[in-house]
Amino acid sequence: MGSELVQSAEMQAYLDRIAGLGDTGGDARTKSIVRRIVSDLFTTIDDFDVSAEEFWHALHFMQQAAPEFGLIAPGLGFDHFLDVRMDIADRAAGISGGTPRTIEGPLYVPGAPIEKGRARLDDGSDAGEVLIMRGQVRDARGKPVAGAIVDVWHANTKGAYSTFDPSQASYNNRRRIETDADGRYVFRSVIPSGYSVPPQGSTDQLLQAIGRHGNRPAHIHFFVSAPGHRHLTTQINIKGDPYLYDDFAFATHNDLIPEVVRREDPEAIHAEQLNGPFSEIDFDFVLHDAAESTEAELMARHRAPAQAA
Amino acid sequence: MGSELVQSAEMQAYLDRIAGLGDTGGDARTKSIVRRIVSDLFTTIDDFDVSAEEFWHALHFMQQAAPEFGLIAPGLGFDHFLDVRMDIADRAAGISGGTPRTIEGPLYVPGAPIEKGRARLDDGSDAGEVLIMRGQVRDARGKPVAGAIVDVWHANTKGAYSTFDPSQASYNNRRRIETDADGRYVFRSVIPSGYSVPPQGSTDQLLQAIGRHGNRPAHIHFFVSAPGHRHLTTQINIKGDPYLYDDFAFATHNDLIPEVVRREDPEAIHAEQLNGPFSEIDFDFVLHDAAESTEAELMARHRAPAQAA
Repeated sequence: MGSELVQSAEMQAYLDRIAGLGDTGGDARTKSIVRRIVSDLFTTIDDFDVSAEEFWHALHFMQQAAPEFGLIAPGLGFDHFLDVRMDIADRAAGISGGTPRTIEGPLYVPGAPIEKGRARLDDGSDAGEVLIMRGQVRDARGKPVAGAIVDVWHANTKGAYSTFDPSQASYNNRRRIETDADGRYVFRSVIPSGYSVPPQGSTDQLLQAIGRHGNRPAHIHFFVSAPGHRHLTTQINIKGDPYLYDDFAFATHNDLIPEVVRREDPEAIHAEQLNGPFSEIDFDFVLHDAAESTEAELMARHRAPAQAA
Repeated sequence: MGSELVQSAEMQAYLDRIAGLGDTGGDARTKSIVRRIVSDLFTTIDDFDVSAEEFWHALHFMQQAAPEFGLIAPGLGFDHFLDVRMDIADRAAGISGGTPRTIEGPLYVPGAPIEKGRARLDDGSDAGEVLIMRGQVRDARGKPVAGAIVDVWHANTKGAYSTFDPSQASYNNRRRIETDADGRYVFRSVIPSGYSVPPQGSTDQLLQAIGRHGNRPAHIHFFVSAPGHRHLTTQINIKGDPYLYDDFAFATHNDLIPEVVRREDPEAIHAEQLNGPFSEIDFDFVLHDAAESTEAELMARHRAPAQAA
């Protein structure tokens, strides 16, 4: 854990030069973080006696893997770790309750069609189990939030997302639903499947090298937002998935696994204007108050561009 | 330097899961190294209170920067650090003397034309100062090495390398010269200029963020090899370059800065069949014996493919 070489005066001076500590320009925080990361990597190289060949092999792997960094990051636990740190910060600030956050993942696309109160997400081409999901958005005091935006996206029954899967229609399984006067939303869709990282891709190669799989259990993503309330990034899992507690992205949360109720009664089927049995999920979202207006906004992150609807 | 969060039992168990320690498959060394790198990055994130926004910004930067990792690695000192470690291993093994190694850089192209004893590297289109460089390849006991391959490559007077600069002819300023019976090589070329990393590119952005420049002093790269001798990767610097001791890639070595002699005497000009003054460098290479045959070979590394000559 402590390379004598890296701790030597000569190497410490070298690290200072590398991080630009002697240069007047640049950003002090960036210099400190660059110095720490390079120092840690030097120490790892020295402690593990990493050969030049191993180093260049790893560097080339990273170059090839760049398009999949959005999958490698959750696979190596970074997304969940960032959530853990935000949860700790909340507890330290006395903020508790509310719907738990969990990771965004790399597959959000902004600009989904907005519908009021009720939406259908799927385009009818996917012959899976119909899902009716409904619930209420409430604030920290239990008051319904009218006009909140429930921005929902999920995979199809093949585990694929529109935009990233060009065979699907634009914004298939993606909608923004504005809650009604009572804070309620409801949508019809098709229960998604889990997915695996692209077979033979960089993430798959890396996970295989460390003996892991790249499967996510079936889940549905949500951004829930309303002025004056903290923006919520979360997911629910579909109960019963074999990977429910073995998500390669570490996003499963016990409070985010609602019951899935199979409805076979003609009355329910008729009420939903369906032709056969379906599954139903009731799930309410509880938002925290925003301490500052920026908290109501989606975190900046490079994302896929909006599509032509 | 030590995040309490990352050291917690819960986070240590999380790191074990991330690195696949509980999974039977995969490679034990890779698991250990992945665990260390992720643990160090978690610690850095926690120690510096890196926000999710900062993390995703950095990840996106890395994705954009992937094509330039071959420049960022030397710029952040990795290439030279690997050399330092190999030098230390040599000293520990009692290996001393010989021409010092220094970094390869990312711009080698295999398959340059082979010529015996003497070669001209430039194609005549670059109107810079003519360079005649010559020397001898010797073994550790001072014996000339006949038939050694001096594989040389350098930039033109604009600091650009053929293949990577499509305006240059294939293999311009790249040759393999086979030493003569007395171990000697000689080549004619044009003195290269230093170069800077591509302006506004990822390496430039990173270096500017930490207050550094991306300039390399003028230099000439060499692989020198012969059966039974250790493969040598090195460079010489052109004396007098303003960045001689301020190389962004940290590759300058005091024993690799030969004198550059300006020859203006008609006799020398005539002897070289030139029309005017030129510069001359004498530089001998001294190779170590190869303890194993693999030491005689170029280290495996992903490189640009060979070109049509």
